[in-house]
Amino acid sequence: MQTNIPNRCAAAAGGGVKPLRYTGGVLQMIDQRRLPTEEVWLDYRDYREVAEAIRTMVVRGAPAIGCAAAFGAWFGARDIDTDSTAAFLEQFAAVCELLAASRPTAVNLFWALERMQSFARSHADRPVLQIKIALEYEALAILEEDERINRAMGEHGQKLLPERCRILTHCNAGALATGGYGTALGVIRAAAAAGKQIEVFADETRPFLQGSRLTAWELQRDGIPTTLICDNMAGYLMSQGRVDCVIVGADRIAANGDTANKIGTYSLAVLAKEHGIPFYVAAPISTIDFSLTDGRQIPIEERDPREVTHIGEQRLAPEDIAVYNPAFDVTPARLITAIITENGVAEGDFVHTLPELAEGTKR
Amino acid sequence: MQTNIPNRCAAAAGGGVKPLRYTGGVLQMIDQRRLPTEEVWLDYRDYREVAEAIRTMVVRGAPAIGCAAAFGAWFGARDIDTDSTAAFLEQFAAVCELLAASRPTAVNLFWALERMQSFARSHADRPVLQIKIALEYEALAILEEDERINRAMGEHGQKLLPERCRILTHCNAGALATGGYGTALGVIRAAAAAGKQIEVFADETRPFLQGSRLTAWELQRDGIPTTLICDNMAGYLMSQGRVDCVIVGADRIAANGDTANKIGTYSLAVLAKEHGIPFYVAAPISTIDFSLTDGRQIPIEERDPREVTHIGEQRLAPEDIAVYNPAFDVTPARLITAIITENGVAEGDFVHTLPELAEGTKR
Repeated sequence: MQTNIPNRCAAAAGGGVKPLRYTGGVLQMIDQRRLPTEEVWLDYRDYREVAEAIRTMVVRGAPAIGCAAAFGAWFGARDIDTDSTAAFLEQFAAVCELLAASRPTAVNLFWALERMQSFARSHADRPVLQIKIALEYEALAILEEDERINRAMGEHGQKLLPERCRILTHCNAGALATGGYGTALGVIRAAAAAGKQIEVFADETRPFLQGSRLTAWELQRDGIPTTLICDNMAGYLMSQGRVDCVIVGADRIAANGDTANKIGTYSLAVLAKEHGIPFYVAAPISTIDFSLTDGRQIPIEERDPREVTHIGEQRLAPEDIAVYNPAFDVTPARLITAIITENGVAEGDFVHTLPELAEGTKR
Repeated sequence: MQTNIPNRCAAAAGGGVKPLRYTGGVLQMIDQRRLPTEEVWLDYRDYREVAEAIRTMVVRGAPAIGCAAAFGAWFGARDIDTDSTAAFLEQFAAVCELLAASRPTAVNLFWALERMQSFARSHADRPVLQIKIALEYEALAILEEDERINRAMGEHGQKLLPERCRILTHCNAGALATGGYGTALGVIRAAAAAGKQIEVFADETRPFLQGSRLTAWELQRDGIPTTLICDNMAGYLMSQGRVDCVIVGADRIAANGDTANKIGTYSLAVLAKEHGIPFYVAAPISTIDFSLTDGRQIPIEERDPREVTHIGEQRLAPEDIAVYNPAFDVTPARLITAIITENGVAEGDFVHTLPELAEGTKR
């Protein structure tokens, strides 16, 4: 199930590594738990295995999870053995339900599964075989659109940045978190491509270390100057006047702009406000959950204490110590300077500006 | 040079482990780099080895460094081979200079060395042998006083806490950081001993993990309910109303109350202010450096990037990535609710209240 790919070969020039590849019937995903020391690609052909890959964070990052789930849904659909469209749709709903249970916070997962199901339903007058083919097409469309969306987001977002800009980012909202190019790192890539003088500080992002393992690795491959820090150093860095803005991704944005993102994002937003530094969220429209009026309604995943007490097999804490390990937190809209989407930049009262941008997607 | 001591045997009931022990000519220090998985005591008889132990963080924590340096100075003094008091004092100054170069930020190091030198000078009319004996006495006095100071600090500090109190602490300002009992953790121990219902959240404190390795271990042994979190979770915890106060130690306090402490302390202070949570610093008077008008003058140590990029032999980041690794930051006095010392609690304008408390030491 493993294919070792020599280092660097997968890097698209300036666009970052694409963490998912699809070739006839097989989804390949880079095992993000093993980066940066090993670059291992895993093959997926079964929807249960895709669900497990999402749960165990082989693939992570809200948009990438959405793309993976879409292919999971397709694998599940392909293996449904019936000629009855009604029976097919019922079994397909069960497939999607299993995939949806893999992680709770990132809304792109549910968005992608809903898109696949709604697409299937819209073909309900067709034979099952044709619906299946349409679903493979749609999974590919979701993956392919995601990179285009990120490139548009990057173009909108980079205009917010000055010619010389020192950017602090948290977690990995990069190519690895998406279908390609990245959300927060997409903005950074676009600014660099536009000739701006960009310098990045990457929070290591405990406990899973997406910053040191993934963001530092991605940006280093793209030749963007990057300095790794521990999460608790961000405030001191800001107090020294060494950060011009913060850009992060998002796992779910409520209708009022409250944003769930990797744990630690909220602290950064408070610190940015204290220092008068702009705080930007970069995320596709699909990350906005208009069904939630505010961030208090976003479910926050708690993960295994072992992520905090161990690194690999090495224990860092006494045995049997209690641990609190929320994977995300919620940053209130009042701390967010702007939300960067593929349709443009939302500022001001997000209750009004977010739906305006989202309308652009429907047109 | 190693003695393995079975777990728990060194725990004073409710007072925490004493990280330094002195018995005729030998200083034993628990190797704090190997806790909590191994409890190894190392023997020291030479001042150069003590300096190296401070530099490599076998012993850490501002007051404990001061105690270790005092014994280092005594070992250095003991080995000076001269009968001339003038020559002795000159060579002793060189010993103290080498010890002082081990770490730059914690002022207790320089305070202890200055106390030893000044004590030697005050005995300049005595034969060298007598000065040496006096220095051994003084090193022991510094160690023994430190625990008494911490118990007094604990008593003053615990009065600030309500009957039920959920306390967030950072790094390890515990028994292990001192001659015994602890500064911030001394206040926590005193509150627990006074029958208050105490619950502690311990920041793991990257990169050296003093919180997960040392604070969690100490408090667990004392039976004080403790929950380990990553540094970046503190803000979210506060936003949920789950923290009643923050208590930290200090490595150096300027005359105006600006406080250098473990990296991440400043971010916590900003977050505490944002949430209206009291922020307390617990430190002995010897941590106050009245020669510095404010915190900008405190030298901030930068340590090896490897502390951030590796855990043991395991690499967590891409090779050759740039790293910024300041070991401390400075929290401005305006963010500090009170400074708890062995002479009482300083509040308000520290420029006036700190000297008043310090005067109590001299009386």
